[in-house]
Amino acid sequence: MELVEEYLRIRKYSEQICEPLQTEDYVVQPVADVSPPKWHLGHTTWFFETFILKPFSVNYQVHNDDYNFVFNSYYETVGNRVIRTDRGNLSRPSVNEIYQYRAYVDEAMVNFLKAPLADEVKELLILGFNHEQQHQELLLTDIKYILGNNPLFPVYSKDKKEVLTSKIEPGFINIEEGVYEIGYNGKDFSFDNELNRHKVYLHDFAISKTLVNNAEFLEFINAGGYKNFNYWHAEGWDWVNSNQVTSPMYWHLIDGKWFNYTLDGLLPVDLNAPVSHISYYEAYAFASWKGMRLPTEFEWEVAAKNFNWGERWEWTESAYLPYPGFSKAPGAIGEYNGKFMVNQKVLRGASIATPAKHSRITYRNFFHPHLRWQYTGIRLVK
Amino acid sequence: MELVEEYLRIRKYSEQICEPLQTEDYVVQPVADVSPPKWHLGHTTWFFETFILKPFSVNYQVHNDDYNFVFNSYYETVGNRVIRTDRGNLSRPSVNEIYQYRAYVDEAMVNFLKAPLADEVKELLILGFNHEQQHQELLLTDIKYILGNNPLFPVYSKDKKEVLTSKIEPGFINIEEGVYEIGYNGKDFSFDNELNRHKVYLHDFAISKTLVNNAEFLEFINAGGYKNFNYWHAEGWDWVNSNQVTSPMYWHLIDGKWFNYTLDGLLPVDLNAPVSHISYYEAYAFASWKGMRLPTEFEWEVAAKNFNWGERWEWTESAYLPYPGFSKAPGAIGEYNGKFMVNQKVLRGASIATPAKHSRITYRNFFHPHLRWQYTGIRLVK
Amino acid sequence: MELVEEYLRIRKYSEQICEPLQTEDYVVQPVADVSPPKWHLGHTTWFFETFILKPFSVNYQVHNDDYNFVFNSYYETVGNRVIRTDRGNLSRPSVNEIYQYRAYVDEAMVNFLKAPLADEVKELLILGFNHEQQHQELLLTDIKYILGNNPLFPVYSKDKKEVLTSKIEPGFINIEEGVYEIGYNGKDFSFDNELNRHKVYLHDFAISKTLVNNAEFLEFINAGGYKNFNYWHAEGWDWVNSNQVTSPMYWHLIDGKWFNYTLDGLLPVDLNAPVSHISYYEAYAFASWKGMRLPTEFEWEVAAKNFNWGERWEWTESAYLPYPGFSKAPGAIGEYNGKFMVNQKVLRGASIATPAKHSRITYRNFFHPHLRWQYTGIRLVK
Amino acid sequence: MELVEEYLRIRKYSEQICEPLQTEDYVVQPVADVSPPKWHLGHTTWFFETFILKPFSVNYQVHNDDYNFVFNSYYETVGNRVIRTDRGNLSRPSVNEIYQYRAYVDEAMVNFLKAPLADEVKELLILGFNHEQQHQELLLTDIKYILGNNPLFPVYSKDKKEVLTSKIEPGFINIEEGVYEIGYNGKDFSFDNELNRHKVYLHDFAISKTLVNNAEFLEFINAGGYKNFNYWHAEGWDWVNSNQVTSPMYWHLIDGKWFNYTLDGLLPVDLNAPVSHISYYEAYAFASWKGMRLPTEFEWEVAAKNFNWGERWEWTESAYLPYPGFSKAPGAIGEYNGKFMVNQKVLRGASIATPAKHSRITYRNFFHPHLRWQYTGIRLVK
Repeated sequence: MELVEEYLRIRKYSEQICEPLQTEDYVVQPVADVSPPKWHLGHTTWFFETFILKPFSVNYQVHNDDYNFVFNSYYETVGNRVIRTDRGNLSRPSVNEIYQYRAYVDEAMVNFLKAPLADEVKELLILGFNHEQQHQELLLTDIKYILGNNPLFPVYSKDKKEVLTSKIEPGFINIEEGVYEIGYNGKDFSFDNELNRHKVYLHDFAISKTLVNNAEFLEFINAGGYKNFNYWHAEGWDWVNSNQVTSPMYWHLIDGKWFNYTLDGLLPVDLNAPVSHISYYEAYAFASWKGMRLPTEFEWEVAAKNFNWGERWEWTESAYLPYPGFSKAPGAIGEYNGKFMVNQKVLRGASIATPAKHSRITYRNFFHPHLRWQYTGIRLVK
Repeated sequence: MELVEEYLRIRKYSEQICEPLQTEDYVVQPVADVSPPKWHLGHTTWFFETFILKPFSVNYQVHNDDYNFVFNSYYETVGNRVIRTDRGNLSRPSVNEIYQYRAYVDEAMVNFLKAPLADEVKELLILGFNHEQQHQELLLTDIKYILGNNPLFPVYSKDKKEVLTSKIEPGFINIEEGVYEIGYNGKDFSFDNELNRHKVYLHDFAISKTLVNNAEFLEFINAGGYKNFNYWHAEGWDWVNSNQVTSPMYWHLIDGKWFNYTLDGLLPVDLNAPVSHISYYEAYAFASWKGMRLPTEFEWEVAAKNFNWGERWEWTESAYLPYPGFSKAPGAIGEYNGKFMVNQKVLRGASIATPAKHSRITYRNFFHPHLRWQYTGIRLVK
Repeated sequence: MELVEEYLRIRKYSEQICEPLQTEDYVVQPVADVSPPKWHLGHTTWFFETFILKPFSVNYQVHNDDYNFVFNSYYETVGNRVIRTDRGNLSRPSVNEIYQYRAYVDEAMVNFLKAPLADEVKELLILGFNHEQQHQELLLTDIKYILGNNPLFPVYSKDKKEVLTSKIEPGFINIEEGVYEIGYNGKDFSFDNELNRHKVYLHDFAISKTLVNNAEFLEFINAGGYKNFNYWHAEGWDWVNSNQVTSPMYWHLIDGKWFNYTLDGLLPVDLNAPVSHISYYEAYAFASWKGMRLPTEFEWEVAAKNFNWGERWEWTESAYLPYPGFSKAPGAIGEYNGKFMVNQKVLRGASIATPAKHSRITYRNFFHPHLRWQYTGIRLVK
Repeated sequence: MELVEEYLRIRKYSEQICEPLQTEDYVVQPVADVSPPKWHLGHTTWFFETFILKPFSVNYQVHNDDYNFVFNSYYETVGNRVIRTDRGNLSRPSVNEIYQYRAYVDEAMVNFLKAPLADEVKELLILGFNHEQQHQELLLTDIKYILGNNPLFPVYSKDKKEVLTSKIEPGFINIEEGVYEIGYNGKDFSFDNELNRHKVYLHDFAISKTLVNNAEFLEFINAGGYKNFNYWHAEGWDWVNSNQVTSPMYWHLIDGKWFNYTLDGLLPVDLNAPVSHISYYEAYAFASWKGMRLPTEFEWEVAAKNFNWGERWEWTESAYLPYPGFSKAPGAIGEYNGKFMVNQKVLRGASIATPAKHSRITYRNFFHPHLRWQYTGIRLVK
């Protein structure tokens, strides 16, 4: 019974995120990394249909055979996938049809969840919850991208805040050299990439209690930080130049004053807010300019109990790699994490787009170093 | 009064073409050459607002200042243009807002057209009619592209026929060598690219009364026509290979049988129907394989009174070039045709997507030689 | 006997063009349209080996079987071709080996030419002469490209003049409306694309006796000609912007003064010299700015007996298309011209890179409209 | 005096590597990652001229001012750099001129080294030695690429062996869990990326004494390893498919038998030789297929004293990241390593292309995961 409620709560939240949208906003895909909102709604539904209803629910009738092709993403073991950049060309199934698909699967799931569940099914169900929550984060940031790159700068909502109000005293926390334990070992859900709690050796470091804010980042801009290759990786410098980057994403210099597209529309940059929508390259360059560095993901995990986190995903210096003893689950579920463990950077924490209770201190998010459309942030180490 | 009715008739037809669409279908842009239907509806409206209401209608209030940026296409003299491939990323203005824009401009136009009009304004108005009719043709073929590239193959309409029923006896018409007159010299509207009726010298030729049909084209396919470079231009051969072209657009080989996406959905290829959705390269290769050739646009214009035309736009061997004495009108209107007179091929006739009375025997359509999404066709000369 | 001498004279001239080169200059291919000099030397030799020695010379031993793969260019019927842009990666066969290949084939050819020749062989031989002369033109312009894009700006030769000294009075020649004959009908060699002398109807026009010179072109630059889209085709304007073109090729603005890379090194622009190394797009834009136009190839052919030509290849307004009755020769030889008859512009005349007696008044050269590395020029019509 | 001898020994070795080349082989650059041999010869010379002679040798006359532009590579603080892919278009300076440049600088260096040297200069000199040795490795592998991608498959040398003859017993070495020290702390030269010897915590692991050989890799191929996405990273799978990779680089399947281009020409694959010229993606996929994994660079460093290494550069699972406390040297020298610490994988050991004594157990080499032209190899961990 509890699982049914949790299922319905999570499923409903995806739809709540889309409430402010017009039908047209569900359809477009401005860049390959951003998916159309309608696709997220269909794909998360396809997950429950494919991995729970089809194998475990007797007599379940697939809603539409073509949807496997349309809503699959990376699960190579489940038929052919749609080429990712084509998602924005699919006017059909319509938004209404996708909501019907959701209702159909939800009804079947609610019926299915009434019966007792095998442990294997429970695990898949919890994975489905977490999968949908990951897409909720993307859903909000993809919507922001779609609206924020429209020349009319439409408002998403007056109510969804991008900045939390808690006031934190600046300062650094000192952590002592030694052997520390890293990774998840609790009894609740975690992703496979967090597992195998293991030991790492850390050297002394001091980590900031606060995130870098827009005022500090503006100093970097005004000091010519985007024009001095010394602060940048070679690939970061190429990225700055070939994309002509001169500020965080969503910033616009209008008549000499910096504005920032937010969920509440185009507003003057809030100097006290944490800087956001910066790539790893920018985070690294900022830290270099400050004469500091980013934390490793292990330093972050050890120190994080001593500071507030959860407002911005925080870039770390760590590459996304397997923990000792990491192994993939067999079958399609096992494709979840391991196949992305190259050329990506770990982010730790959570952001204002993360659903409540979805993240934890051992959670490992990861993106390519040039990406900026998530609510990323910077915490410094010295 | 007659102009008002013509205005309303033409404006209404654009909206009728869109009647079978769902909101999502208005939004997407699968390739750069295809525009989202909502953009066509807005752009044709912007034309009347910009070239008639703003300069000539006293006290006219622009509907929305941002729309100039959003709905301009190639008219470089009218502000900055939207980069073309971005059209498919614009979820706003919404479809409803664009219909409101149309209603607003239509109301202002109807009022404006009640007063007596200067000749200059009448000419712009007629140009606006023809401009919207050109976009009606694109609107239908762009819709076909959007639906026909969707894996669900949705039906557009059961009523819109792609093939006309008139039965024509096959055979060739002989035209004698001599000096002929080419170009428009009537009193009605024509585009600037048809003007300056002038003399050309033609040599003897014989031109087919009928278009090449699917049965004949299938023979070309089965004879290995797509695999033998001898029939192709070097650039056509590169195009075939880099795009792995093996049939006309919208053809699908399913279990050994050829199907064809039509406005009425996916159907078996109709062998008696004229072949369509072929590029100039394919038209040329087919003619080479037959030991014949395509007509020049002058041959076509001289012969066309002797056969039925209007079902398929017919590729000619002629490059799109200015007629003797061609000159551009001053200002934005002059950008209409001349700037495209390089690297394109002339098509003559009309197609089932062409609005009634829009084409004429001197009409010159033009596209790049690799494009296929129009209702193109092949007529042979020997 | 005469043919042997002609053979040796032409073959030697290719090597004379290369005399000023260092070994390294033979090897590089800076862009796809430019071939390494060593490739030209090998390819022209391969032509005689493949089309004359192999089929007609009894007991001829092929010099090296791999050379067919390495030195073939576009002749699809003769084995697989090397992908064109790879030519610049082939350090072997070495320059010495290619000169040995030339010597080997020349010796075999001289022996072969001692015996009486069938007419078919004579024709192929003459075609081979003209083929090598075409490559001599490319050889010199490719060498200029290789040296002129080297930051050290090495001198090719002090002796090879780019500008002829003949002084011509400016002015226009008037040609009267009427039917004219076009195309080659002599008894000497011509290419298949010049054949079928036929009638065209020309309207009145006046054509300049002189080519546009650098002083005039500098006026166009200083008047902002490269910055005003009104003078350009849409594709020309895209080309200007995406390549950031601000002057003819090989021009460099150094400390406010224009310099020009020539075969004699980097020199101040000679204001009296004909402008050169301009694309068709630039030629068209210049003519538009002047309120004039380029001649068609037919106008040029009719008028050319009245003015001096041969210093610059002159862009015409004509697209490269087949003449009435054009037909390809069977086999590989037939691939020579017809397959390029799309998306190219005709140039008429000859240039200082053209070998003596290679061109004639009916000769049709052709290039894509954006290309500039030939000695192109502009002649105006009004 | 010892430094002079070391200088001359190292400088001479670069030229010895080039002895088998023909002039043309020095010039070409088939892909961006491979530099022309002449560029390596010039660039290593430029290093000594720029960082030692110019700042420290009184009255030194720069050999040619333009060479700074031509031979600079990534050192952004030293003037403008040549865009990397243009290196293969530079026929000048000629090979002879570059050897003259080497002789000129060598003479100046020998004179300069006779006088007593400040410690700072000594350090730069040793860095220059190591820099030239790194380029010697690239020089040989770049030469192999140039010759091995030539359709004539020229032999480099009969004497340079790609496989060492030492026979090793297969088996695994067990390493116990605990804290280990990593990084260089000796008194001789090391690169900045090896510095700051520090502690890491390792868990139990077993590492193979031998490298994977061609016989084992052939099993992977024959088992369909290149066709099963389960063994691959998502980016590796894209790389396999978009490049149509079916075997290690330089392998050719001829009439059903595998051949391998070596410095000694095209030969049947030696089944006992260690597999080489595989990307990290392939190394990872092979290990996945075996149910094992690659070592981390720390595991490798701890275990390497127990096995022979130096035949192939060994891919590790570690991303190339800074050690704790890493800091860049000020000025151009500091650009050496830190700026590449993103998106690359660490390789450990050395290869048959590594100059004697250039590598050591703490040495960290690094490349992008898709690159294959180095003598890479695979060592497994379980």
